[in-house]
Amino acid sequence: MREIFYPRSVAIIGVSSKPDNLGRNIVANMVEYGFDGIVYAVGPSGGMVETRRIYRTVDDIPDHVDLAVILTPAKIVPVVLEECGRKGIKWAIIETAGFREYGAEGRKLEDAILQVAEDYGIRFVGPNCIGAINMENGLCVPFPRLSKFIKTGDVSIITQSGGVGMSALNIMANEGLGLNKFVSVGNALNIKAEDLLEFLIEDEGTELIFLYLETIQDGRRLMEIAKRSSKPILVFKSNIGQLGQVIAASHTASLSSDNKVVSAAFEQSGILRIHDATSFGNGLKILKLPPMRGKNLAVVSRSGGHAVIAADACELSGFQLAELPQTFLDEIENHFRASVIRLTNPLDLGDLFDLDVYAQIVDQTLRLEGVDGVVFLHTSISATEHDASRNLLERIMQLVQKYDKPVAYYISADAREVNYLKQHYNFPIFTQVVETIRALEISHHYYCEEQETRRSKKRPKISADKDFVRKMIGNARAENRDLLLSESMAVLQHYGIPTVQSMVAGTVEQAQDAADVIGYPVAIKVIAEDISHKSDVGGVQLNLRNNSSVVEAFDDMMTRIDKAYPKAKVDGVLVQPMVTGGRELILGGKQDPQFGPVVLVGLGGIFVEIFDEVAVRVTPIDHQDAIEMLEGLRGAQMLMGVRGQKRLDIEAVADALVRLSELLQDFPEIKEVDINPIRVFHEKEGCMALDGRMVLTTG
Amino acid sequence: MREIFYPRSVAIIGVSSKPDNLGRNIVANMVEYGFDGIVYAVGPSGGMVETRRIYRTVDDIPDHVDLAVILTPAKIVPVVLEECGRKGIKWAIIETAGFREYGAEGRKLEDAILQVAEDYGIRFVGPNCIGAINMENGLCVPFPRLSKFIKTGDVSIITQSGGVGMSALNIMANEGLGLNKFVSVGNALNIKAEDLLEFLIEDEGTELIFLYLETIQDGRRLMEIAKRSSKPILVFKSNIGQLGQVIAASHTASLSSDNKVVSAAFEQSGILRIHDATSFGNGLKILKLPPMRGKNLAVVSRSGGHAVIAADACELSGFQLAELPQTFLDEIENHFRASVIRLTNPLDLGDLFDLDVYAQIVDQTLRLEGVDGVVFLHTSISATEHDASRNLLERIMQLVQKYDKPVAYYISADAREVNYLKQHYNFPIFTQVVETIRALEISHHYYCEEQETRRSKKRPKISADKDFVRKMIGNARAENRDLLLSESMAVLQHYGIPTVQSMVAGTVEQAQDAADVIGYPVAIKVIAEDISHKSDVGGVQLNLRNNSSVVEAFDDMMTRIDKAYPKAKVDGVLVQPMVTGGRELILGGKQDPQFGPVVLVGLGGIFVEIFDEVAVRVTPIDHQDAIEMLEGLRGAQMLMGVRGQKRLDIEAVADALVRLSELLQDFPEIKEVDINPIRVFHEKEGCMALDGRMVLTTG
Repeated sequence: MREIFYPRSVAIIGVSSKPDNLGRNIVANMVEYGFDGIVYAVGPSGGMVETRRIYRTVDDIPDHVDLAVILTPAKIVPVVLEECGRKGIKWAIIETAGFREYGAEGRKLEDAILQVAEDYGIRFVGPNCIGAINMENGLCVPFPRLSKFIKTGDVSIITQSGGVGMSALNIMANEGLGLNKFVSVGNALNIKAEDLLEFLIEDEGTELIFLYLETIQDGRRLMEIAKRSSKPILVFKSNIGQLGQVIAASHTASLSSDNKVVSAAFEQSGILRIHDATSFGNGLKILKLPPMRGKNLAVVSRSGGHAVIAADACELSGFQLAELPQTFLDEIENHFRASVIRLTNPLDLGDLFDLDVYAQIVDQTLRLEGVDGVVFLHTSISATEHDASRNLLERIMQLVQKYDKPVAYYISADAREVNYLKQHYNFPIFTQVVETIRALEISHHYYCEEQETRRSKKRPKISADKDFVRKMIGNARAENRDLLLSESMAVLQHYGIPTVQSMVAGTVEQAQDAADVIGYPVAIKVIAEDISHKSDVGGVQLNLRNNSSVVEAFDDMMTRIDKAYPKAKVDGVLVQPMVTGGRELILGGKQDPQFGPVVLVGLGGIFVEIFDEVAVRVTPIDHQDAIEMLEGLRGAQMLMGVRGQKRLDIEAVADALVRLSELLQDFPEIKEVDINPIRVFHEKEGCMALDGRMVLTTG
Repeated sequence: MREIFYPRSVAIIGVSSKPDNLGRNIVANMVEYGFDGIVYAVGPSGGMVETRRIYRTVDDIPDHVDLAVILTPAKIVPVVLEECGRKGIKWAIIETAGFREYGAEGRKLEDAILQVAEDYGIRFVGPNCIGAINMENGLCVPFPRLSKFIKTGDVSIITQSGGVGMSALNIMANEGLGLNKFVSVGNALNIKAEDLLEFLIEDEGTELIFLYLETIQDGRRLMEIAKRSSKPILVFKSNIGQLGQVIAASHTASLSSDNKVVSAAFEQSGILRIHDATSFGNGLKILKLPPMRGKNLAVVSRSGGHAVIAADACELSGFQLAELPQTFLDEIENHFRASVIRLTNPLDLGDLFDLDVYAQIVDQTLRLEGVDGVVFLHTSISATEHDASRNLLERIMQLVQKYDKPVAYYISADAREVNYLKQHYNFPIFTQVVETIRALEISHHYYCEEQETRRSKKRPKISADKDFVRKMIGNARAENRDLLLSESMAVLQHYGIPTVQSMVAGTVEQAQDAADVIGYPVAIKVIAEDISHKSDVGGVQLNLRNNSSVVEAFDDMMTRIDKAYPKAKVDGVLVQPMVTGGRELILGGKQDPQFGPVVLVGLGGIFVEIFDEVAVRVTPIDHQDAIEMLEGLRGAQMLMGVRGQKRLDIEAVADALVRLSELLQDFPEIKEVDINPIRVFHEKEGCMALDGRMVLTTG
């Protein structure tokens, strides 16, 4: 992959001497950025550009070429690539658009390109992309003509969209953040975003990585790479709704994904997910600093109003204002300032005009053990203070190093001075109070996420009779059907998930007998492969209090099913005791196309439907993960015991979740599983699955 | 109030010739901003400053003075103000800090100032403020030395904090937004933010008003003024949490307020509430444009990636992507561009390089009836395009005028060009895609809010026996107690809120008799003024199925109450039938210290506790308001009938809410009322208050 960013010689293919030719922009960019290798221009009409010859084909180039950059009409790309192959070029960036994103014809062209690449052992970025930049060696192959608008730094970017990538660069330039490498992957036909990420996490010049993705090609791999990375990874994943799907498909041929799964996967692998340009800027800036390891903030402000806004924002971000020792406050008051406003945290130092003293106060504040980070809200009142302000900033930069704690530095000053600071100091400058605290929230969140990914997970050994389950699933798949209710319950039981006592009854008489054995009241549920929503057609009859109720319910059920599904093959009913007490939850799992198996848990009924209360994790999970899923539910208090109600047996549900996760890991043939409901009882009284449904993959 | 902004002569009091004197900054600012009146410098040490004499007292000034700006030590402010009074000065701005915000001594000083002001008929801004600016006449009296960093425009600012006000100006300057007037109110001892707002809504040069408030002094008046205003009003209300309260009190002596009430009040009076600098900037920018009247957006983009992000953001903001007629799309495709990406909405025009054509497309899009606004996502790829881009912007400005619809204009370009556009065009420039759509969301929200405030409300005539209620409340207050349960229920009934049949029983025998009359099962509830949480001590006994249960429950209740509240005076019990069916809601109301009476409604039980599901409105409300409160609850679907459940009688609850609102309007002596629960039945079957509690104001 190194050849993409560090080629010694590059052929730009598709260059002509016409003024509106985009290929010549690339040549000009390489010159402007001072590429430290050889650039060959190639184009069928020949001629010259930027004082150099345009070769008619790569074949005419007298030397070896490391990297081909292709920007010819789509139709001839396969031929051009083949010429490259014959020339012995192993790496390419195909910028041309008009492939899969444009329909069937484009897809055929892509197949042809892939074939050529395979035949000649070529690896390529694109097609339908804007190219790459490496600030270290002056490689700059995007087709728009670019000035040197951004400084060199340690942030590298992988973007699916060239336009969004360029916007990101503009934002970085504006914030004074330096770029290391940039690559736009477009349709990512051969080299994937994941491949480039894998390269960048080891790349020496890169300290922070940003990805813009409209689709995730291999979620598991993305997670695995991210977990290995010691560098922060920020991802803006768009294409999350209904409206974006159409345009994303026509843009970079992207498929959408389950947004909750994406969030969970990122969280689990230490990826910082961002949702707009503001959190992009905040994230890049704050992650340059030491992490916010705890929740205790000190706010030092030159304006009382900023202090109030900061205090509100702290509360919304879940931070505490560290209690500053009275001796410390007294010292500040005595030594540093006239007493106009009484000191507390936030430290409102409005009437203190000696900026040198601010640095001393920040120093002393950072030194306090109970302080995890400082928000410094500066107001550079007028131009006469700019020099002192800059000195103050330098002092603060040193203090951050010294104490290895973050100082989020906000300044209210005229635009010119703010811009000067951003461009001349390698330190984050914030200009919005609320965003300053949100940035620290990002830092703390990232720190926790990171800690969590480093935790060693304890997967349980489950002594399930896997052969039995395999056989059951195999039989069903052979019959081209999903698991029956009774089978699903049996699988759960084999994996150690407590299930309600269930007896299969083929006839009404057997149902009566079973009910007598189980004891009243009972529930009966139809067993039939073709009926998916069994409660809608009377396939679930609850609270049957005696023998005759069982008969009535059985008959009623069969009549209604016969009406609704005349062709359904009914295999009987499951008779279960009625279970009461505790509260109903839903456990589930599915095979996500990008991330593989995931498990979920939610409060039952309207909480799922109206309040969307569901926690999701990519498997495998361990017990602690499962507990965190439950605790993370907004309605968690209902489980933990609120208003004197008893705490429920969270441990048991967590255990069931872990077992479900193992089941999905073991059997990728299970496409979807729903345990709805599982009833969780009071603490130490366990839980019990009352109903289970498993859908299998086909083929 | 005009004299504050348009004085003909100003005395700056507290000036000395020392280099670090703040008063001399004010004199210098007046010169720099070209104040078109006469400035007198006043200070006890005399001397000269900025080529002018410093008078020792205002008395020495040979002419009449319209406005005094005072920046002397706090202790002598009363004396100085008295000198002003004797001189005949009627208006002042007191910038000095160190008053109420600093404790008891400061409060005394404030009292002294108020007395002087009353004696001499002086009205003043401050104390503890940064002063005022009027860009129209060059009045500029803040004490920091200011350059002319912001252009003249139509936005005016009222701020409680000088520092936050200055930050707002920096943000505006950076965004190219022009200022008209600026005033910092500080402790707002005499002239309130509300007074200044009243002035500005009539002020000719002001088109948009921004307020930063840490406290709201007279919420009702603020609402009333806002409703009268034809100019958009944006308010950043801070001091909303626990953490901010302490610092706000020490900063501008501000009291905190109920954040939900503030939001409701703003919503009801057409005030746009903002929460950070981003929404401040977005709001000011977007409200310069015609409003987004509907929900149908068209997105025109030069980058597919931006289009995807925009589509996601549209969905999150509740917009729809307008369906563009196929003939329209075909026309664009045929006339304007090669076919690389198929067109839809968002219109991704990536390969179209003639910017003139973009203007034509925007023109034709705005013309479509189904389009309420356009998001234009521009990428100015390189410097060579800047001229064409500027022309495009001018065309778009004309189109906005022509069609009276908003075009939210985003541009990704290098910082210098973006800054040029912001400073040279009186048109909002956005640089973040998601924020561009959020801005349109603000526009639409403001438009709807505005429409709503213009709606004529229909308050019902309620034929309550007010004398009866007045007497009951009067008696209770005379006895220095709140209303008893039985009395509260009676009041509700008098106001036409359906209440459950309730019989008062003084003895266990009477309770038995009452139960027999009502019919079983019954509930009994203790009537006792001293017991606030009656269910916690067995004071509510439900579901009593027969005569002997009533006896047991009565005895149990009395035993437990006697234990918990040995001194409580028990007036008996209320016997009620058990009511089932439907769903429980909570209705309530209270006297808010800033906004007067408010009503609230929420789903009962855990929904209030865990999901914080409560809707609030400042009274009076009408039926439509009440319906909107109910529909706005996140759990509203539970009332509207979800999953085949029957719809509940929303109309009846709304009616009860309106009646409760009228009750609170009629009787400000009611400090708090709780109807918990009120049971709402199926559609057309009404609702019924099962319990009511009313707390009265004292004195």
